[in-house]
Amino acid sequence: MIDIDTLFKVTYGMFIVCSGSKAKGNGFISNTVFQVTADPPRFAASCHKNNYTAGFIAETGVFSVSVLHKEAATELFSRFGYKSGRELDKMEGMQVTYGETGVPIVLDDTVAFLECKVVQTIDMGTHFLFIGDLLNTGIVDNRHDPMTYHYYRSVKKAASPKNAPTYIDPAKVAAAQKTGPKKYRCTVCGYLYDESIEKVKFDDLPDDWVCPLCGEAKSGFVMD
Amino acid sequence: MIDIDTLFKVTYGMFIVCSGSKAKGNGFISNTVFQVTADPPRFAASCHKNNYTAGFIAETGVFSVSVLHKEAATELFSRFGYKSGRELDKMEGMQVTYGETGVPIVLDDTVAFLECKVVQTIDMGTHFLFIGDLLNTGIVDNRHDPMTYHYYRSVKKAASPKNAPTYIDPAKVAAAQKTGPKKYRCTVCGYLYDESIEKVKFDDLPDDWVCPLCGEAKSGFVMD
Repeated sequence: MIDIDTLFKVTYGMFIVCSGSKAKGNGFISNTVFQVTADPPRFAASCHKNNYTAGFIAETGVFSVSVLHKEAATELFSRFGYKSGRELDKMEGMQVTYGETGVPIVLDDTVAFLECKVVQTIDMGTHFLFIGDLLNTGIVDNRHDPMTYHYYRSVKKAASPKNAPTYIDPAKVAAAQKTGPKKYRCTVCGYLYDESIEKVKFDDLPDDWVCPLCGEAKSGFVMD
Repeated sequence: MIDIDTLFKVTYGMFIVCSGSKAKGNGFISNTVFQVTADPPRFAASCHKNNYTAGFIAETGVFSVSVLHKEAATELFSRFGYKSGRELDKMEGMQVTYGETGVPIVLDDTVAFLECKVVQTIDMGTHFLFIGDLLNTGIVDNRHDPMTYHYYRSVKKAASPKNAPTYIDPAKVAAAQKTGPKKYRCTVCGYLYDESIEKVKFDDLPDDWVCPLCGEAKSGFVMD
């Protein structure tokens, strides 16, 4: 038997994984970046095959990882987690530096970055696991703690995007949860509007109210 | 350029990964277990090729993951992280249950467990990455938070065992650190004896004092 709550006990960080070049780059929010060997230092990053960034990684053979801090802006998650680089230039207006390979590296709300050269690409079904040798790193900010996925879920009240390895259908979450105070979940990003901690009842929100995380309309929420 | 401090910014949980059967099983401490796809729910666990458990996983095709909590006993890390099942029966005296496949699952200081069936084994050089479909899960304890690798390092003052993907040679750490209060590091497990927070100077510790984490003799410590 699989209990969905169990999956939330596994700890992850929160990252922006980027690829491309100075001319054109893209990135996405990830919680699955991890070291796979110490000698040589080698990292893995999981990436949905549909992600626009997957094509950049396949083409350039490099990726960067920006480790986000606890106070990282909601706008970052909205831009890199719930929008596609096919429709907008995610890098526009961001603080971006370029690595030894020319790969773009996002510095906004970042404590540290890694730059990796792909040595292996593993087909995981819906996702690719890109294995990269570590070429270059940098500390950007030592004041903030890195954000954990647990913190992102509990404090930011957000869930994984649809293309994340840890995505869970909100309907399944609702079915698994017991009845309690009235809560409404965004069907696009999983953002939870909890009446017990908000000042305004969900029904009383104006019709043009949108999800603060992904911009989905009020009508895109379902009772949780 | 690679800055070792950067690697500590990547967030991980702390786990015991087990394999084998009721007749004979073994497990090891891991910080690299993560979900790789949501559909089907599929997890990866990194395991050093020299680990005794690697043979059990290859033989039985199953592994379990116990997610450790924040207050997990130092003895657990000592037993599962710094000793080999070739020399002792790690399961002896532990609270162990058996999964649907018969795989042993450690319940001590565990918040939740996962049971996985291996569908792919990837050679990572020094390590295998075992990819497993999720068969079964369980919540063991909802009172404690899961332990993070950061917490293990900072509060438990411990480092990765030699076979961990995140292992770092203590000499490299020492070289990378600036001079400060006198600290002594265990060359076996990386445990840090920091005079600025301990009551007794390292030199004044009795000769039969041993590393509280791995049992190494006092002579196995070097100035950090």
